[in-house]
Amino acid sequence: MMTPSHHAYVPFVSVDKMMKLVLTLGIERVLLDLVAEIEADFRRWPEFDKTARVASHSDVGVIELMPTSDGETYGFKYVNGHPSNMKNGLQTVTAFGLLADVATGYPVLLSEMTILTALRTAATSAMAAKWLAPAGATTMALIGNGAQAEFQALAFKAVCGITEVRLYDIDPAATAKCVENLAGRGLRTVACTTPEQAILGAQIITTVTADKQYATILTDNMVGAGVHINAVGGDCPGKTELHRDILLRSGIFVEYPPQSRIEGEIQQLPADHPVTELWQVIAGTATGRTDARQITLFDSVGFAIEDFSALRYVKSKLAETGLFDNLDMIADPNDPRDLFGMLLRAA
Amino acid sequence: MMTPSHHAYVPFVSVDKMMKLVLTLGIERVLLDLVAEIEADFRRWPEFDKTARVASHSDVGVIELMPTSDGETYGFKYVNGHPSNMKNGLQTVTAFGLLADVATGYPVLLSEMTILTALRTAATSAMAAKWLAPAGATTMALIGNGAQAEFQALAFKAVCGITEVRLYDIDPAATAKCVENLAGRGLRTVACTTPEQAILGAQIITTVTADKQYATILTDNMVGAGVHINAVGGDCPGKTELHRDILLRSGIFVEYPPQSRIEGEIQQLPADHPVTELWQVIAGTATGRTDARQITLFDSVGFAIEDFSALRYVKSKLAETGLFDNLDMIADPNDPRDLFGMLLRAA
Repeated sequence: MMTPSHHAYVPFVSVDKMMKLVLTLGIERVLLDLVAEIEADFRRWPEFDKTARVASHSDVGVIELMPTSDGETYGFKYVNGHPSNMKNGLQTVTAFGLLADVATGYPVLLSEMTILTALRTAATSAMAAKWLAPAGATTMALIGNGAQAEFQALAFKAVCGITEVRLYDIDPAATAKCVENLAGRGLRTVACTTPEQAILGAQIITTVTADKQYATILTDNMVGAGVHINAVGGDCPGKTELHRDILLRSGIFVEYPPQSRIEGEIQQLPADHPVTELWQVIAGTATGRTDARQITLFDSVGFAIEDFSALRYVKSKLAETGLFDNLDMIADPNDPRDLFGMLLRAA
Repeated sequence: MMTPSHHAYVPFVSVDKMMKLVLTLGIERVLLDLVAEIEADFRRWPEFDKTARVASHSDVGVIELMPTSDGETYGFKYVNGHPSNMKNGLQTVTAFGLLADVATGYPVLLSEMTILTALRTAATSAMAAKWLAPAGATTMALIGNGAQAEFQALAFKAVCGITEVRLYDIDPAATAKCVENLAGRGLRTVACTTPEQAILGAQIITTVTADKQYATILTDNMVGAGVHINAVGGDCPGKTELHRDILLRSGIFVEYPPQSRIEGEIQQLPADHPVTELWQVIAGTATGRTDARQITLFDSVGFAIEDFSALRYVKSKLAETGLFDNLDMIADPNDPRDLFGMLLRAA
């Protein structure tokens, strides 16, 4: 049997290789690099093919495909969201992604994205805060101490200079896990027993909980003037974290409005409620924070371009690290018309 | 480092394993099995989540995602269509696909689908002809002798009892390749030098060409009464194979009208031109061929449910054949909330 051509092989980054890649480069460096990549792609936002993600909902969760393209490279992510998974010992969110060459349609990268999604979500959160949070912020409340919490904490340390993280979760074991994982990483961690205690003195409040239901992690009276809210957990229809009144007092920043109107905190508001697109703040065509007393809210749901940026970053690191395998995924006969002959010759 | 749990591994069918699987089972048996699977799923058509595929078009081709779900299993295919690839030694169509568990969102199969798509497309074509072609058909014209041609020929032999295939391609080398590949497989092959010669005496005409442009592979005067046309190659906006007048004389059968109106031969017709959904013929709720003189046309563009059926079939054969690898694609820490800890422990 002939050896498949190089087109047949797709570089594949397994979970194991992704962990090695992140540890080799350093977690905080990866987070900083991802912010740079995502920011660069947000600046050229109009160049991308954009579409709200394609969701398949069930009673217990959602499976989504998130495609985008910049005309040269196509990317998509497969991602699920199943809040009930956790009690069965499974991840709430798992993901993998792919890049392909627009000119040929051939895949050029397949990668795990469960870890990469946690990294890119944290990087996007910190990037937004870099543009929106009050000047000199040093303390962040982190409400929801699950799978994504430590990534958020380190991103805000690396990107925004946060020095203290105040942790709260309805399950104290989650908070304890978080405190332990963050030990020795240059962040002061404070385990809190109420959300009110967590937000004490915090200039930034991050909510990253997982319940698939209208929840009220933050009520209106908890949020003072000047705070930046990074609302990560409300990310599908029927799943929100903030009381509606907070939204009415906030300057709201979103990724892609057609998707955020369906999935974000702003699903609680009329469809014409004003929001600002984050990319425009970064590109300099819209105003970010207007004054020190404004409450800014990044209503994050996650958008395909962030995954695209992250996948391209991973791809750029493969040659130097060798941290990938070649996957025999694309049938590529010597004569492209002879697919059947290739099959016969495999006998 | 701990061994990943079984959830971390996704069974993966590579190109090599797919070829071995098909050859082990037998090509015609696989085609017959696929018809049975696709037919069973078409009978329960209303149970599926259906959506037109999500296409990303460029000047040279298209990249598509084709998701569906039956409420228990979710599936999607990635597929490209790049007619210009062939002259660069690449496949016009490459594909891979995935199945996942709706209850958890965890993937349960990743598979090459370049070969599988050729098989499922041929199986779907032959299935439609089984329901629509004139009784006693023995001869098929096969216009377009590229990567999918032999699969079509064998499917019509196995499923419809075709004994003679009359081959035509604008490139005689493609026809010669086809004749050679089909030798000794129980089909009489006739290499033809014009489309008119190919359709001589044929009760079924299959067009499976690849040009991304409005083409006229068949003109109106070439198609006589009673013929069944299996139009496979017209499958995206701006890509058709039949003269419009043929459509006006035919009973037209399609897979999923919202997609076929955009991509199929019927993009040449007004949006309200009557068509019949093939699944309804199979389920007994719509009429197929009305009489011996009717021209029936299966305006095939390929629909996600066919891929779903094919992927489920492949999955059902893995335990007995062992023809798969385990891919470390899903991060699955022992404590689902401790994704970060898993990363740290990989050091």
